[in-house]
Amino acid sequence: MIVVKVGGSQGVALDQVSQDVAALVHQGQKVVVVHGGSAETNEISEKLGHPPRFVTGVSGFTSRYTDRQTLEIFAMVTNGRINTLLVERLQKDGVNAFGLSGVDGRVMLAHRKEAIRIVENGKQRMLRDDYTGKIVEVNGALLQQLLDAGLTPVVAPLAISPESDAVNVDADRAAAMLAGAVHADQLVILTNVPGLMRNFPDESTLIPHLPRLGLEQALSFAEGRMKKKVLGASEALDLGVSKVVFADGRTAHPLMDALAGKGTVIS
Amino acid sequence: MIVVKVGGSQGVALDQVSQDVAALVHQGQKVVVVHGGSAETNEISEKLGHPPRFVTGVSGFTSRYTDRQTLEIFAMVTNGRINTLLVERLQKDGVNAFGLSGVDGRVMLAHRKEAIRIVENGKQRMLRDDYTGKIVEVNGALLQQLLDAGLTPVVAPLAISPESDAVNVDADRAAAMLAGAVHADQLVILTNVPGLMRNFPDESTLIPHLPRLGLEQALSFAEGRMKKKVLGASEALDLGVSKVVFADGRTAHPLMDALAGKGTVIS
Repeated sequence: MIVVKVGGSQGVALDQVSQDVAALVHQGQKVVVVHGGSAETNEISEKLGHPPRFVTGVSGFTSRYTDRQTLEIFAMVTNGRINTLLVERLQKDGVNAFGLSGVDGRVMLAHRKEAIRIVENGKQRMLRDDYTGKIVEVNGALLQQLLDAGLTPVVAPLAISPESDAVNVDADRAAAMLAGAVHADQLVILTNVPGLMRNFPDESTLIPHLPRLGLEQALSFAEGRMKKKVLGASEALDLGVSKVVFADGRTAHPLMDALAGKGTVIS
Repeated sequence: MIVVKVGGSQGVALDQVSQDVAALVHQGQKVVVVHGGSAETNEISEKLGHPPRFVTGVSGFTSRYTDRQTLEIFAMVTNGRINTLLVERLQKDGVNAFGLSGVDGRVMLAHRKEAIRIVENGKQRMLRDDYTGKIVEVNGALLQQLLDAGLTPVVAPLAISPESDAVNVDADRAAAMLAGAVHADQLVILTNVPGLMRNFPDESTLIPHLPRLGLEQALSFAEGRMKKKVLGASEALDLGVSKVVFADGRTAHPLMDALAGKGTVIS
């Protein structure tokens, strides 16, 4: 079993990923696909007159402020547009793909961060009405039922809170939690860079192999968006996934290359 | 087993429908929900600068012209926004709802009408590049598997063609085909009118009961959007559904009222 995470529209060659998924599925391999969609959500939000807003937490991390309207746009774009079109594309390649988000059947349960402490103009204040969550549980049995029925799940990064609010979740960490829940052998995270670099963006500093113990240190040199992927890798390994690969999603065979060990292999 | 079709945002009291679905599910009844979304698609299309376009076929029916961009917006709005929010609402009422469209797992297969003959400025011409389809097959076994797992399917009106193109389908007729495929006892179609009227919009001419043989005649007096519902009713009865109800979706208990025989009962 392989869990593969692809970004939204930016950088990852979705046609090539779809072909690779098809080749694997036709070999009898089971695959779960997880996708993001932040960039497309920003684009549509702008067009709908509700531009994205980012906030800086007290820990220095920057994240999207997801008020209710943004959550609804995020659901529309990720679960409606990106998910449906990815399922369609996989179907064209002969994969019986089945799209869902973590809201469906409560597949991904997340604690909603009802209030976050942010820094604005040098002052701290609490921000409420945020629909972002941290996944605490994945229903692996339900995903397994879909896989057993010959389906390839394609998962949008939305989860449901105990109070049944839909929340936006980080797709890299969703993929990690899913990989643990379905007992995946490998988690492949495709991005628009060749892997983890010691000195980003100097590709000559690509790290081909990182032992598990090196992950904590990697957090210190990973650039912005790579930090969450490093956290995801760490979570996946903790959950029993034996190998995590950060690989280049822009090649002619992104997934096959990753499985052949190109990129950064963490085990 | 009951299949209930609700419109998009307009006219149907979704909170009340959700509560009624919950009451039925908690009684052990199995329910499949089908929804539309034309009105919201029009609204978002306008905002995104790709206003809806309607064409008149040679038979006099008016329908949406669904070019590829419109199809993608339709998928985004119906399968992303309306479906996710309806699933969330049902989850809040304690129903383990599971959203999907007919593209997922090829649940609804439709023949794409690749070219339609339209009338424009009094002249006939062929219109190509239309992503609209007519459902030819529904995978009832897959829906049954979801129901057996304790899930309540919530279905968006998209289907897949044999060539794996996503297509927009009429939600009333999708509900009818689904009702047949899952061997539903009843199909309830909720609208923003009390039922079928002999002289629309004169509500005193509401037809409380229509025998199956009266359906053909009903096509002659049903107003615009009701015509497709009459066609759907006819298809559902042909597929073995014993009763179809057209009922008012705006009441305090829309589904319970319909099951109690309010509206127009066709059997």
